[in-house]
Amino acid sequence: MTENPYKHFSVEFDAYFDKAVNQFPKTPENLYEPLNYFLALGGKRVRPLLTLIAADFFEGDITKCLPAATSIELFHNFSLIHDDIMDNAPLRRNKQTVHEKWNSSVAILSGDVLLVKAYQELAKADKEKAVELQTIFSKMAVEVCEGQQLDMDFETKNNVAINEYINMIRLKTAVLLGCSLQMGAICANASQKDCELLYQTGEKLGIAFQLTDDYLDVFGNPDQVGKQLGGDIISNKKTWLLLKVFELADANQKNRLQNWLAKKEFNAAEKIQVVKEIFTSLKLENYLKAEIDFYYNESIVLLKSSSASPEKINVFAQFAQGLMQRTK
Amino acid sequence: MTENPYKHFSVEFDAYFDKAVNQFPKTPENLYEPLNYFLALGGKRVRPLLTLIAADFFEGDITKCLPAATSIELFHNFSLIHDDIMDNAPLRRNKQTVHEKWNSSVAILSGDVLLVKAYQELAKADKEKAVELQTIFSKMAVEVCEGQQLDMDFETKNNVAINEYINMIRLKTAVLLGCSLQMGAICANASQKDCELLYQTGEKLGIAFQLTDDYLDVFGNPDQVGKQLGGDIISNKKTWLLLKVFELADANQKNRLQNWLAKKEFNAAEKIQVVKEIFTSLKLENYLKAEIDFYYNESIVLLKSSSASPEKINVFAQFAQGLMQRTK
Repeated sequence: MTENPYKHFSVEFDAYFDKAVNQFPKTPENLYEPLNYFLALGGKRVRPLLTLIAADFFEGDITKCLPAATSIELFHNFSLIHDDIMDNAPLRRNKQTVHEKWNSSVAILSGDVLLVKAYQELAKADKEKAVELQTIFSKMAVEVCEGQQLDMDFETKNNVAINEYINMIRLKTAVLLGCSLQMGAICANASQKDCELLYQTGEKLGIAFQLTDDYLDVFGNPDQVGKQLGGDIISNKKTWLLLKVFELADANQKNRLQNWLAKKEFNAAEKIQVVKEIFTSLKLENYLKAEIDFYYNESIVLLKSSSASPEKINVFAQFAQGLMQRTK
Repeated sequence: MTENPYKHFSVEFDAYFDKAVNQFPKTPENLYEPLNYFLALGGKRVRPLLTLIAADFFEGDITKCLPAATSIELFHNFSLIHDDIMDNAPLRRNKQTVHEKWNSSVAILSGDVLLVKAYQELAKADKEKAVELQTIFSKMAVEVCEGQQLDMDFETKNNVAINEYINMIRLKTAVLLGCSLQMGAICANASQKDCELLYQTGEKLGIAFQLTDDYLDVFGNPDQVGKQLGGDIISNKKTWLLLKVFELADANQKNRLQNWLAKKEFNAAEKIQVVKEIFTSLKLENYLKAEIDFYYNESIVLLKSSSASPEKINVFAQFAQGLMQRTK
C-alpha cells in the first residue's frame, strides 16, 4: 500500500479524540477505567476518518466535523464492548476484553455510559445540525443492534440465504460506515442528494469490507493478515463462504461438510484444509472476489455521482482498495 | 390514599406511550419481543407522570411533553433491564426478567436498542427544545450509570458513609425524577429558574422515595407493601439503616450484627427479627422517618419557591405523600 494520503486527518482526529476521552470523569473508577483501557487499545479509527474525508469532499471545515467523528468512534467502541460480552470473546486487539479483565456487569455499564457519551459528543456539533445528525445516528444505532441480533440468530438458524446474510452484515457493519460518511457530508453543508449518496457509498463499501474479512480468514496470507487464519471455519461461522458452498456443493461434498461441521473434536488444521479444499474446488475464491468487487465498484460509482471532485474520489478509491488489500 | 388527582394525565400518557411502543418494528423478534414483553409488565409510570405534572404547573400544553415523558419511561425500562442482569434478578414485577426468560445477550441488546429508542422519542419534541432536552437527558443518563456502578461497588466496600450512600441513591434514582420534572417545565416554556427548581424538587423527592423503600422493607406493613419484607436484611444490603446502625451501635450490638451478617446459613425470619430489634433499640425507625421528612419537605419548599400556583403545589404535595404512604 502507498502512503496514507489522510495522515493529517488522522493526526487531527486523534488529538481531538484523545482530549475528549481525557475529559471523561475519573470516578467511579470501575465505570471509567474500563473505558480508558479499552479506548487505548488502539484500532485503526477508520470510521471517524471517513467522516473527515467526506467533509473534505465538499470543501468543508474539518474541525467542524470532529464532534460527529468522535461520536462515531465512541459508538463503535460501545458496540465492541457489548458484542464481546455476547460473543464471549476473551481477546480484542490481542488484549483482554473488558468483561474478561473486569466482569460482565462492568462491561455492560461501561458500554452503556459510552453510548450516552457518544450522544453527548454529537450534541457538540453545530446547533443547527444537531437534530439532523442525531436522527441519522439513532437510526444507524438501532440498525446495528438489529444486525447483531440477526448475527446471533443465524448461529442456530438453518438455511440462511445469501441475501439474508448480506442484509445482516449491512446492518451490523455497513450502516455505520454509511453514517460516518454521511455525517461528514452534513457537517460540510453538502446538498441532501450528496449526503444520501455518501451514505450509500459507505454502506456498499462496508459490505465489501466485511466480505473481505470473510475472504481473508480463508484465503488470506497469514503473514500479512497478522492473525491466525481459519477461525471462521473452526467455529462453523456462517460466513458468505459457508452459505454459498451449500448452494453449490453436490451431495457428496455436502455430506463431507456436514460431517466436519458436526464434529465436536477434531484437528483444527485438518478441518481447515478439508473445508478450504471444497471451497476451492467450487471456485468460491473467485466468486467471492467478484462479489467484493461488485460492492466496491458500486460504492465508487455512487461516490462519482456526487459532486465531489474526481481527483479526491480517485485518492479515496485507492485508499479504500488499500484498506482491503493491506490485510490481504 | 385519596383518588389520584392526575388520572387524566395518566390516561393521556398511556395512550401515547402504548402507541409509540406499538410502532416499534416487529423483527428481529429476539430483539423486539423482549421489549414488548417487558414494557407490558406494567409499573406505575410515575416518572413520565411527573413530566406532565410539571408542564401543568406552568400551564403548558400537556401534549407537547408526551415525547419527553415517553423518553423518560423508555430510559427507565432500559435501566431496569440492564440492572436486572447485573443484579442477577430472576423476577421483576413478579414476572421473569428478560435475561431469565431469554438470555443475557438478548437482555443486553434489547436494553441497548431501548436506550436508542429513548433518544429517538426525545428527538420528536419541539425542534427548538430538542438540544436542551437532550443535554439534560444525557447528563442524567450518565449519572444513573454512575449511581448503578457505585451501588455495585458498595457491595464489597467497607465503611460506606451515610453521605456516600445518599449520593449513590441521588445518582441511581433521584436524578431521573429531577430530569422528569425539569423536562416538563422546559416543554411548558417555564423560566430557567423554574426549570432548575423543578429539577431540584425531583432530586430531593427521589431521595425521599428511595429512603422510604429502605424504611418499608423493614418497618412496612406486609399486607400493604404487597411483597415479602426483610429482603434487604436477608441479603445484607447496605441500606441507610444498615449503615446508620454501625454508626450508632455499641460494641456488643456491633458484634451481634457482624455475626449475623457473616452467617452463610441462617433462619431468615430469625435474622430479620434480631436485626430489626437492634434497629428498633437504637430508634432507627424515628431517625429514618425524620430523614425522609427532611428530603420530602425540602422538595416541597423548593417547589414553593417556583412560580407554580400554591393550589397546584398543594395537590402535588399530597399526591407525593400518598405515593410514599401507599406502600407503607
